[in-house]
Amino acid sequence: MTAASICTIGDEILIGQIVDTNSSAIARSLGSIGIKINHMVSIGDQHDEIVSTLRNELENNDIVIVTGGLGPTRDDITKQALADLTGSTGYRMDAAQLAIIHEILASRGLDMMEVNRLQASVPDTCEVIPNKKGTAPIMVFRIGTSGKTLYSMPGVPFETLGALPDVLEDIRRHHPALQDIRHRNIMTFGIAESALAEKIASWEDALPEDMHLAYLPNPLTGVKLRLSIYGGNAQDDDRRMQEQISRLKDILGDTIYAEQEDRLEHVIGEILKATGKTLSAAESCTGGEISHLLTTVPGSSAYYLGSVTSYAVPVKEKVLGVPPETIEKYGVVSSEVAAAMAEGVRKITGSDFSVSTTGLAGPGGGDGTNPEGTVWVAVSSALGTQTKKFLFHNDRKRNIERFAASALFFLLEVIRRETAV
Amino acid sequence: MTAASICTIGDEILIGQIVDTNSSAIARSLGSIGIKINHMVSIGDQHDEIVSTLRNELENNDIVIVTGGLGPTRDDITKQALADLTGSTGYRMDAAQLAIIHEILASRGLDMMEVNRLQASVPDTCEVIPNKKGTAPIMVFRIGTSGKTLYSMPGVPFETLGALPDVLEDIRRHHPALQDIRHRNIMTFGIAESALAEKIASWEDALPEDMHLAYLPNPLTGVKLRLSIYGGNAQDDDRRMQEQISRLKDILGDTIYAEQEDRLEHVIGEILKATGKTLSAAESCTGGEISHLLTTVPGSSAYYLGSVTSYAVPVKEKVLGVPPETIEKYGVVSSEVAAAMAEGVRKITGSDFSVSTTGLAGPGGGDGTNPEGTVWVAVSSALGTQTKKFLFHNDRKRNIERFAASALFFLLEVIRRETAV
Repeated sequence: MTAASICTIGDEILIGQIVDTNSSAIARSLGSIGIKINHMVSIGDQHDEIVSTLRNELENNDIVIVTGGLGPTRDDITKQALADLTGSTGYRMDAAQLAIIHEILASRGLDMMEVNRLQASVPDTCEVIPNKKGTAPIMVFRIGTSGKTLYSMPGVPFETLGALPDVLEDIRRHHPALQDIRHRNIMTFGIAESALAEKIASWEDALPEDMHLAYLPNPLTGVKLRLSIYGGNAQDDDRRMQEQISRLKDILGDTIYAEQEDRLEHVIGEILKATGKTLSAAESCTGGEISHLLTTVPGSSAYYLGSVTSYAVPVKEKVLGVPPETIEKYGVVSSEVAAAMAEGVRKITGSDFSVSTTGLAGPGGGDGTNPEGTVWVAVSSALGTQTKKFLFHNDRKRNIERFAASALFFLLEVIRRETAV
Repeated sequence: MTAASICTIGDEILIGQIVDTNSSAIARSLGSIGIKINHMVSIGDQHDEIVSTLRNELENNDIVIVTGGLGPTRDDITKQALADLTGSTGYRMDAAQLAIIHEILASRGLDMMEVNRLQASVPDTCEVIPNKKGTAPIMVFRIGTSGKTLYSMPGVPFETLGALPDVLEDIRRHHPALQDIRHRNIMTFGIAESALAEKIASWEDALPEDMHLAYLPNPLTGVKLRLSIYGGNAQDDDRRMQEQISRLKDILGDTIYAEQEDRLEHVIGEILKATGKTLSAAESCTGGEISHLLTTVPGSSAYYLGSVTSYAVPVKEKVLGVPPETIEKYGVVSSEVAAAMAEGVRKITGSDFSVSTTGLAGPGGGDGTNPEGTVWVAVSSALGTQTKKFLFHNDRKRNIERFAASALFFLLEVIRRETAV
């Protein structure tokens, strides 16, 4: 099976100033065409280390993908390391990339400077795939007669993602014998990993030898079960996996909320689109996170009307129409205020469903009644308004995320029930 | 200088199902006590590969931090690999961790199962630091007489972050001769990396030999300049870095919007807090992202009153009071509608400042007048309302992020000017 390694270059990764999201995106892409990632490694901007690490990775893998270490102010080290690694005797100017650099700078109203021009200069041992999204070219080094290939891609995530299809295309052309890896995901919620493991133990034990099960717990999306087959026959594998998943569904029932798709906002959006219903939100402690999540879905304007983030009490009263007496009697963080917020936003937007949150994300010691980490969620529809309380023990950022996830799960529960999907 | 390596274990990383955020958090923490990360590596759940990779990392580093590979359903492989690597002859039950497991399960209303109990079982070659945030213990392996240490931490980010202070504490105790690494960040905006490099070229050339400058461009936060000194004398270094930064400020002026802090919402929040001014937002295409960003700041309720996300046109008219004639005459994506939205939300919330967005995040071909990627931003205050248009060429998610960042930068510009901070 074709094996690959992903190497990210950059001091900024090693000192933790940026999170490497490229490796995961590249791994997913390569996985989709049956390439197994054996190894991911991050190293600094040091010539000798780049050369020795890449030499080592090339020994153990068919394909090595390098990202980062390029850019107008840092080209020198990485390019020289790649030149030395591949026995280059000089540089050449790549005309296609130079033209793109011209174009990009012109579109931004910038002049071409020497540092920009030099980005199109590459070791003579490489082929160039032009980078349409940025100024640093994609360099392809075919390693002697080994059939191995090293790809050097720019490290800016937007450019890396933009360059990936072209790199995949090149890999497919040069590695025709790629094997398939097939994954199926099953999303569960409301059950702990260990309880889930016990519940499906006999199903798991009876899985065919070539199927692998992984438990991927995530507090925001529940425990994801991933069933994988490496190699094998595509059509037959799909059927066999489907059989296993059908059995699993019989065991887990409603605990499964989606297959493949792990994003709640997508699952909710699909039901709303299919049933022609609309949605709005009223947020206090989640501060816009629910609205933000809902609107990341392309086409969400078909069912999502809008929201009010009522951070200050007067906004709750004036905009959402929460009665001041309700706030005074029950407190801002209460079932009653959550319900009034959800009803208020449903009224002013005219939506079929609405969801609201009021709580304490922290840091701070609570409001006397409720500890930090408390949230009241309400879901309102023509059939009535329901509320639920959750309590988490995380930091502010994490609490906000979990508040939003809990609200969306509660919303999904109500929407599923009331639309009978 | 004390060198460290970070190893993450888990098939889910290699197939790209999760983004590894732990490595970056650990690197920042270790960096803060003067430990240099030489290497980060991710490997799968395979016994032999875990053993050989960790053996290799221990050869080249003083400290090896392992995360992941633990959990009720996957303990076996990693723990056995650690046992074999360190010559363990058996397992022992750790009473402190077992008590925590009991507590955590009880607080969630769950029974203790065999898989839970086994999490407290550890190779007899390790010391245990109890993991207060989760069920998997932190295992500390002192490697013979080498003075080297391997730490195995749980991989769930919330638990990893929770365990970090205890691990740092242990490292400090066992590596008393730690050297300092000092970083200073300077945040710039509105200038491209290459233009910036040219502008500060002579300043950069004149930097002392032990100071290193890195350019870290980010479309959302501008180009970050990072000045570093490895080793050296703390007090003297601080003074010398400050001198260089003062010179840099003379060259760059207003292009610098912050030092250290790279999050716009924090910079904005600090000015608002200092001046006692309040803020609200009206979002269309950004769908809640601006409000979400503003409320991630602890204490933001002191100045942030709330927002309206008016995704549907009737919400713009009814809630924000945008005149239907304005929408009809200029279109939803226009300077006039952006201004009316900002003025509307300032009126209903009573805030000093407000910011609004109306645009096209895509995917889709634009509205006939404006291409996809267009956003109009308005900032309103007692002194008047100003608007600006931006155009980006990214996918939906990225467009939304850049819309929000542009709106916050425009807001910062106006707030800085009008509060004269």
